[in-house]
Amino acid sequence: MAPRRPARHDAGRLSEDLTVTLIDLDRTTILLGRTPLALDALLRDLPDEWVRTPEGPGRWSAYDILGHLIHGERTDWIPRARIILEHGEARAFEPFDREAQGRWPQDVPVAARLDEFAAVRRASLTALAGLRLGPAQLARRGQHPALGTVTLSELLGTWVVHDLNHLAQVARVLAKARGDEVGPWREYLPVLSR
Amino acid sequence: MAPRRPARHDAGRLSEDLTVTLIDLDRTTILLGRTPLALDALLRDLPDEWVRTPEGPGRWSAYDILGHLIHGERTDWIPRARIILEHGEARAFEPFDREAQGRWPQDVPVAARLDEFAAVRRASLTALAGLRLGPAQLARRGQHPALGTVTLSELLGTWVVHDLNHLAQVARVLAKARGDEVGPWREYLPVLSR
Repeated sequence: MAPRRPARHDAGRLSEDLTVTLIDLDRTTILLGRTPLALDALLRDLPDEWVRTPEGPGRWSAYDILGHLIHGERTDWIPRARIILEHGEARAFEPFDREAQGRWPQDVPVAARLDEFAAVRRASLTALAGLRLGPAQLARRGQHPALGTVTLSELLGTWVVHDLNHLAQVARVLAKARGDEVGPWREYLPVLSR
Repeated sequence: MAPRRPARHDAGRLSEDLTVTLIDLDRTTILLGRTPLALDALLRDLPDEWVRTPEGPGRWSAYDILGHLIHGERTDWIPRARIILEHGEARAFEPFDREAQGRWPQDVPVAARLDEFAAVRRASLTALAGLRLGPAQLARRGQHPALGTVTLSELLGTWVVHDLNHLAQVARVLAKARGDEVGPWREYLPVLSR
């Protein structure tokens, strides 16, 4: 999808006072492209009741997590990348609304949300490829409203780890919804006590 | 795949002194059938270096976890179900070897291991359907070598949660391998500190 690039760029070659390590953009893109498939494989055919069972009172279900990921595609990753490229540190990112999906219509089936996530993620990756990022762009700095100075490389690296964070969470939430079915094996299953 | 059954059987209807809740076998089968796809989506195209990076010294990589799941199909789930059905509590299960995959050839590519897992899981589900389990069979008891008395229902419920436990682990191990790329976002990503 993205053009081939060397495995890792040492930004130190670009500027003497810059010592950040930059991500490998190809590797980033591969995993980002696979997350919708992984979630689809896991969730599409499960009973609605299972997918919508929250981890606990006031906590998220797999359905909520999917909404959170969709909202990130629309308002977080690519929009923030553009802010860094256009404004650098001069303009802080909009704060990300972690509860947005709770205000969406809840009667949209999980299958439709999976399709939606696949579509917005595809659009994000098309936009990412269109940015034609090289080492100089990846090393650019932006302002996070709470965390302070970050680089574009860190934003894109976080995108990948954020996917994995929520994949692990989906597996955990689904596991806990079946936690009363394992009997004495519970002690061998750390996912049930996280 | 498996024949339709009512959502949940209350084993109390079968025997007055039996109060265990039995799993829904259809639901169990759906998720078990999807795990190979979910792992395939996540791992097949990732660089070998990423998939083989262990979580830490002496800990497992995603590749090791995949081997562990394959070994479970061969020696744990269906073999133990058969022991319960044939011998009840009279014969304890063989202890499960959690380190078996560490002694396998390590030059088998991850893609081949993914194919292998899909094949052995398919065979397990065919065998499971062939057992034609009803509530009376699901309530049967067996002997775990360390945990003591368990039911067939608990064994099969554990199979599902065990899949989810290791899916969460795969996501976590992959995330940690990229943990140095997120900069100050680390504090928002609990998967990196588990």
